[in-house]
Amino acid sequence: MKSEILKGIYKQLVLKLEELSRLGGVMGIMHWDQEVIMPKGAAENRSKQMAALAGVLHEKSIDLEFGRLINKLVDTGIENFTEIEQCNIYEAKREYELETKIPKELVQEIAELSSRGHQIWAKARKENKFEDFAPTLERLIFLKKKWAKFSFPNLEPYDANIDIFERGMRMSNLTPIFDQLKKELIPLIAAIKKSSINLETSFLEGDFSIDKQKALGKTISKDIGFDYNNGRMDSSVHPFCGGGHSTDVRITTRYRTENFIESLFGVIHETGHGLYEQGRMPGFLDLPVSESLTMGIHESQSLFWERMIAQNLYFCDYYLNLFVETFPEKLKGVSLNAFYSAINLSRPSFIRVEADEVTYPMHIILRYEIEKGLFDETISVRNLPEVWNDKMEEYLGIRPSSDSEGVLQDVHWSGGAFGYFPSYTLGAMYACQFYSKMLLDINDIPKMIATGNFSCIKKWLNENIHEKGRIFSTDDLVLKVTGEKLNPCFFIDYLKNKYGEIYNL
Amino acid sequence: MKSEILKGIYKQLVLKLEELSRLGGVMGIMHWDQEVIMPKGAAENRSKQMAALAGVLHEKSIDLEFGRLINKLVDTGIENFTEIEQCNIYEAKREYELETKIPKELVQEIAELSSRGHQIWAKARKENKFEDFAPTLERLIFLKKKWAKFSFPNLEPYDANIDIFERGMRMSNLTPIFDQLKKELIPLIAAIKKSSINLETSFLEGDFSIDKQKALGKTISKDIGFDYNNGRMDSSVHPFCGGGHSTDVRITTRYRTENFIESLFGVIHETGHGLYEQGRMPGFLDLPVSESLTMGIHESQSLFWERMIAQNLYFCDYYLNLFVETFPEKLKGVSLNAFYSAINLSRPSFIRVEADEVTYPMHIILRYEIEKGLFDETISVRNLPEVWNDKMEEYLGIRPSSDSEGVLQDVHWSGGAFGYFPSYTLGAMYACQFYSKMLLDINDIPKMIATGNFSCIKKWLNENIHEKGRIFSTDDLVLKVTGEKLNPCFFIDYLKNKYGEIYNL
Repeated sequence: MKSEILKGIYKQLVLKLEELSRLGGVMGIMHWDQEVIMPKGAAENRSKQMAALAGVLHEKSIDLEFGRLINKLVDTGIENFTEIEQCNIYEAKREYELETKIPKELVQEIAELSSRGHQIWAKARKENKFEDFAPTLERLIFLKKKWAKFSFPNLEPYDANIDIFERGMRMSNLTPIFDQLKKELIPLIAAIKKSSINLETSFLEGDFSIDKQKALGKTISKDIGFDYNNGRMDSSVHPFCGGGHSTDVRITTRYRTENFIESLFGVIHETGHGLYEQGRMPGFLDLPVSESLTMGIHESQSLFWERMIAQNLYFCDYYLNLFVETFPEKLKGVSLNAFYSAINLSRPSFIRVEADEVTYPMHIILRYEIEKGLFDETISVRNLPEVWNDKMEEYLGIRPSSDSEGVLQDVHWSGGAFGYFPSYTLGAMYACQFYSKMLLDINDIPKMIATGNFSCIKKWLNENIHEKGRIFSTDDLVLKVTGEKLNPCFFIDYLKNKYGEIYNL
Repeated sequence: MKSEILKGIYKQLVLKLEELSRLGGVMGIMHWDQEVIMPKGAAENRSKQMAALAGVLHEKSIDLEFGRLINKLVDTGIENFTEIEQCNIYEAKREYELETKIPKELVQEIAELSSRGHQIWAKARKENKFEDFAPTLERLIFLKKKWAKFSFPNLEPYDANIDIFERGMRMSNLTPIFDQLKKELIPLIAAIKKSSINLETSFLEGDFSIDKQKALGKTISKDIGFDYNNGRMDSSVHPFCGGGHSTDVRITTRYRTENFIESLFGVIHETGHGLYEQGRMPGFLDLPVSESLTMGIHESQSLFWERMIAQNLYFCDYYLNLFVETFPEKLKGVSLNAFYSAINLSRPSFIRVEADEVTYPMHIILRYEIEKGLFDETISVRNLPEVWNDKMEEYLGIRPSSDSEGVLQDVHWSGGAFGYFPSYTLGAMYACQFYSKMLLDINDIPKMIATGNFSCIKKWLNENIHEKGRIFSTDDLVLKVTGEKLNPCFFIDYLKNKYGEIYNL
């Protein structure tokens, strides 16, 4: 039986974790406000306010009493706690150690250089001068290697960096999976390029009222199951899913009058993230056990709705009427097949965020291989532009004419975020594997989609993924849900079948 | 010469004060978000988030090191600091003592009862049952008397409560001033009532598009000088001026389609508050010295723009064209005099927040006399409805038929805020005294208003009041700005002249 003393200690830990969660939620609202609402003139002060709050969060998370509680629970009688309680304890331990293991000076140097690095990178990208950014990048890699030795001394430095975003994922798992993707997708991309099919997409370009786009996005996100009683949708320069709590989930999108499908898919993507947050484990909303598992699993939820559902023929079938009603000038008379093909156009391009689902993994694998090489020193920063362009040519058959549309395009490295990119493609693969299993678990998924009935789909995701929080490792979750570990074949087969049909391969 | 050590200690204090100010700003944004933006379902968690942040603010403001720094500065060489530095030190001392002098249990009981009290009051008001609220009110008065003994042991308990909102103001000052107002205004109100003039106001009632009202409010608040680069305007159930910083001032209003003048004057009122916040002492925005002086001075700024400016004939002269253009259906053909008279209609009414500038002081004096009596025990809670109604009859010649439109109408007491009401009428008197001085200081104020040129007026307020922060006591500020202390004659003469003309008395 669990002793009263242990129970009491656990209760104290829970109070501290809840406090951290609430202050973290406050930070979430401040961030959202900064991106969506804040008047321009407040920018300077806002960063000071957020720094003050970050300071409080840091003070509280390295509090010695916090560490003592955790160690007492781990060392004496962890087996007396439930699975959920154990998860909270171990999550607290991991966070506490990550916060306390790294020397303060290193933390500060990384924070300062990441902040300055962003400005240096933005200028270098604007002026197309990689050499201006290179020294910062070199220093950041050096610091993140050093950081890795403190945080995860038993891991390879790049694995340690990956672990922050994809807990448990290692290069030894990723490399063979990415090699398999390369082997299958490079020929597919080449075949699509050579296909005689020339997709008509002109009806997707035009002058689409932003008010109508907003209404459309709101309707569809509601249909899918986003709960506006516990969330909002707004506009921001960079779309994101944020907010302050599972009961206060805020998604954003951006609108362009020239193209409505981009912002609509953006809304659906962020809605997928939002449903994950709104679907957290009931009863434990303010504790680590209910937090999202990894970046890859989060991305699997957004890509599930964006790609598996919204880029699906049945979805187009259901919504085409609404699209035509909303924008008759451009869409009247467009057939279902023409519409479906147009929104699934695949074509190699330089910029990752504009890539389609077939070419996107190549952008990721290129970055993964480069990061890996930078960390094991088989690639040097000085050679990066050439390495980048060579790989673009090898994987996608196109060569950037400037570093701004090549190695300088992404913000991640300037903030010291190495090891983040794989999550995007992991998410795509998980989404596909989940969808395949869902088709087996639930009859008539296509019919449900074609009639705008998404409640069973949402429920399946809620029960199998969202509500599971951090109870299982990613590997175990995928195994429990789909009966096997991550298997890239689902994704490969899906792409081959779908694009084979569209491009008549 | 100031020693380096003292300078160093002051610098440490400044860092702590700035941190408190920034975290206070975060609380401001959280509060604004709650009232304006937050999805409904987030309410429960939001109060927990705000409680967590309030806890952090409290911890930091009772920090022993904080107290040690303050005492060192006060005890050794305060004379070495500038006026501004001394103000920061004394403000810190006052806040620190207020936070640390009161026993924790008392603070908690007041906080809990204030929170519960709000619900009990809301229900009692809805059901018109004063007896359901009476025990809570009794307990709150008891607690706030106890609180007064700890916080200001040398003051009468009611004076201590007033001091929180109107530092330095005492019953011994207020009672004679309020008696003078009664002596002059009760006959004026009676005379207006008896006047044969029957003001036509039907053109102010109608169906006014909320979008047009919004645009109108935005135009006029901009004309007056509200800086939208450092602020916002939104809608909320209860209009207020909040935000997170002098560079992030957020005013709100509410709109009714039936009446546009209410929301417009609401915007102008909150703009007045907003200009005070946007106009804080440059270079010291995050320190107590630049904070607003008292509630009364804050209210003087909102009422200055609402009453001295917007209810002025010259203002109507300038804007009537715009009003007619915006709402031609109702306003076409309305003369300047008819419009000016209509917006200045004076008539006794039961509800304070709906009262006009002539009758408003009576609502305040009634509350002041009741609070005073409750604290010196010459009035008992049980008799309140009768006392209230008798005073209403004596001062305004009307008797409420229910407690909901009488003693139960205001939220203040349910939250333990005794001593707040006088600020409203102090603000009205200050506004009038400031305006009289401004007329002497600047030539052609009427012409400036009549041509929509408000920059000199705003500048005068900026330089004489906003930028002075807390350097002077209220008495000294008023003396410095106007050449004399608060003198109710300015207000009395203004009302007698203005309403004597309108009502042909």
